[in-house]
Amino acid sequence: MTAMFHAYAAHEAGGELKPFEYDPGPIGDDDVEIAVQHCGICHSDLSMLHDDWGFSEFPMVPGHEVAGTVAAAGRNVKRFTEGQRVGVGWFAKSCMTCDTCMRGDHNLCAEAQGIFGAPGRYGGFADRVRIDQGWATALPEALDITSAGPIFCGGITVFNPILQNGVKPTDRVAVVGIGGLGHLALQFLDKWGCEVTAFSSHPDKEREVRGLGADHFVNSRDPEAVKALAGAFDFVLVTVNVALDWEAYIEALAPRGRLHFVGVTPAVSSEIFPLLIGQKSISATPLGSPATIRAMLDFAARHNIAPVVEHFPLDKVNDALQKLREGKPRYRIVLDV
Amino acid sequence: MTAMFHAYAAHEAGGELKPFEYDPGPIGDDDVEIAVQHCGICHSDLSMLHDDWGFSEFPMVPGHEVAGTVAAAGRNVKRFTEGQRVGVGWFAKSCMTCDTCMRGDHNLCAEAQGIFGAPGRYGGFADRVRIDQGWATALPEALDITSAGPIFCGGITVFNPILQNGVKPTDRVAVVGIGGLGHLALQFLDKWGCEVTAFSSHPDKEREVRGLGADHFVNSRDPEAVKALAGAFDFVLVTVNVALDWEAYIEALAPRGRLHFVGVTPAVSSEIFPLLIGQKSISATPLGSPATIRAMLDFAARHNIAPVVEHFPLDKVNDALQKLREGKPRYRIVLDV
Repeated sequence: MTAMFHAYAAHEAGGELKPFEYDPGPIGDDDVEIAVQHCGICHSDLSMLHDDWGFSEFPMVPGHEVAGTVAAAGRNVKRFTEGQRVGVGWFAKSCMTCDTCMRGDHNLCAEAQGIFGAPGRYGGFADRVRIDQGWATALPEALDITSAGPIFCGGITVFNPILQNGVKPTDRVAVVGIGGLGHLALQFLDKWGCEVTAFSSHPDKEREVRGLGADHFVNSRDPEAVKALAGAFDFVLVTVNVALDWEAYIEALAPRGRLHFVGVTPAVSSEIFPLLIGQKSISATPLGSPATIRAMLDFAARHNIAPVVEHFPLDKVNDALQKLREGKPRYRIVLDV
Repeated sequence: MTAMFHAYAAHEAGGELKPFEYDPGPIGDDDVEIAVQHCGICHSDLSMLHDDWGFSEFPMVPGHEVAGTVAAAGRNVKRFTEGQRVGVGWFAKSCMTCDTCMRGDHNLCAEAQGIFGAPGRYGGFADRVRIDQGWATALPEALDITSAGPIFCGGITVFNPILQNGVKPTDRVAVVGIGGLGHLALQFLDKWGCEVTAFSSHPDKEREVRGLGADHFVNSRDPEAVKALAGAFDFVLVTVNVALDWEAYIEALAPRGRLHFVGVTPAVSSEIFPLLIGQKSISATPLGSPATIRAMLDFAARHNIAPVVEHFPLDKVNDALQKLREGKPRYRIVLDV
């Protein structure tokens, strides 16, 4: 007999979230059970809730930016003690033994599972959540647990490509879209030592955005401003999920430059010549591996990098989701459990 | 008073090549004058001849796969002696001092000039040609001058991305299109230590293609065969200039895989999810730097890599061009001067 978990669930695509209880069953040998203290809301929660990607399962408990404490652990778990502060993001399990996992690319494992979305898997809009020990990460002392949740999804999503693509402190970089992901990317890239340009469709954010580490601010809705930057960037990180004039952004790359997507935009296309002449790349990454999450947390702790958040109590989750639908959070909403 | 150069030129887009004389003027301080012995024909010669890319100039002397000997040199030239065997490919000059050149990426210099194509610049279908000393490369003793020309364009075009993209001997790689470029790519990648798959629309080439280093042969016109290879390749090198089902080729990439273009296909497009899930890249490169050309020649000499060529005398250049239009050379045509 196990205690029930208390969550908020949607029962149909686009439906309101309502209180939902479920029996998690006996704890698995490799499970870590987290007492959720805070859970960020990511745009992917909305996409899943509205079944934008066509693979949603209901009832759905969203939530994949969890910060909390260890409440229980399976018998194989040695790295954690009860009460220890931990966090988890989108991925909650991977096979651990395929070639991809064994190379350290657990986030690319073909069997990697989200914390919610599959039948019987429920997320962090809840008092408890269970995940595989491989995907639980200790939260460094220096990081504030009340704002830490978003770093496990929004943070790793933008930190990982900086590391994977070998971005150098001498690089001129740009971040397209300054929201939940972008405001963390600016902080990481600033502390990475780069010259950082922010592209945003909200000119009213300029002062705040400069405060987050941007050296330059460009209105992304001004096609002339983008065109004037031909050859300017070694690395352009796209965090938006809308279509922009990608040919213009490819033109904005310097020789050897890279246009990198972490937002799921409708598509990307390019003539070959503009890529070929300047040895340019188009690429994308999903989140990051557990090892990269640990490296990110250490970097964030050393450089005082933290999500800028607004708080809602968990029982106001529908109000919080509505605010995100309207694109109004600055810059991430965290639900307090 | 300088001696006239004797060449073959087209006077209009798609026109027949006819004998053409021009006065090269006094030799420049940094010029190397090459007595052309052999000049390969590349598909780009046809594209330029037909003004497919919209920037052709006429009269045009095509030819950019030159192997010959040093006939004269400007007063700044110290590295070459008269009679020394040298070669040159598409690029004949770059600014040498911009950031890009100074980093060794002379092939990405915004002011890099082709051996022909600009007003007053004439190519290698001629008895003589002049280029900047930075782009003249000594031909190693071990390489046969009669077949060496194509390595300076077709060769460097496929060798450069192997080096630039950090292809490893443990990688599973594929070459799409086994013609002038692809038949050299197979040799380089085989000697690089990779497991090599050839994609060709000519099943009758299979035996020859395996002899060039392919471990596997796939009919690129069989969509089921491509689809069956999902996740199979770390690196796919596209040498064709026609549209194929690039989404299927992206699916054929393993995690971290790269789809790399050296052929100017009509365009490439992709949904973001297939790139993102597997951390995949799309990229392209133009030719290679002088330093990379030297590294390639050394590698080719050590591994007995050479273009497989058919010979035509220079005065049969129109017949040779027609054979290339029909896609019939195996695998490169060299004009003997």
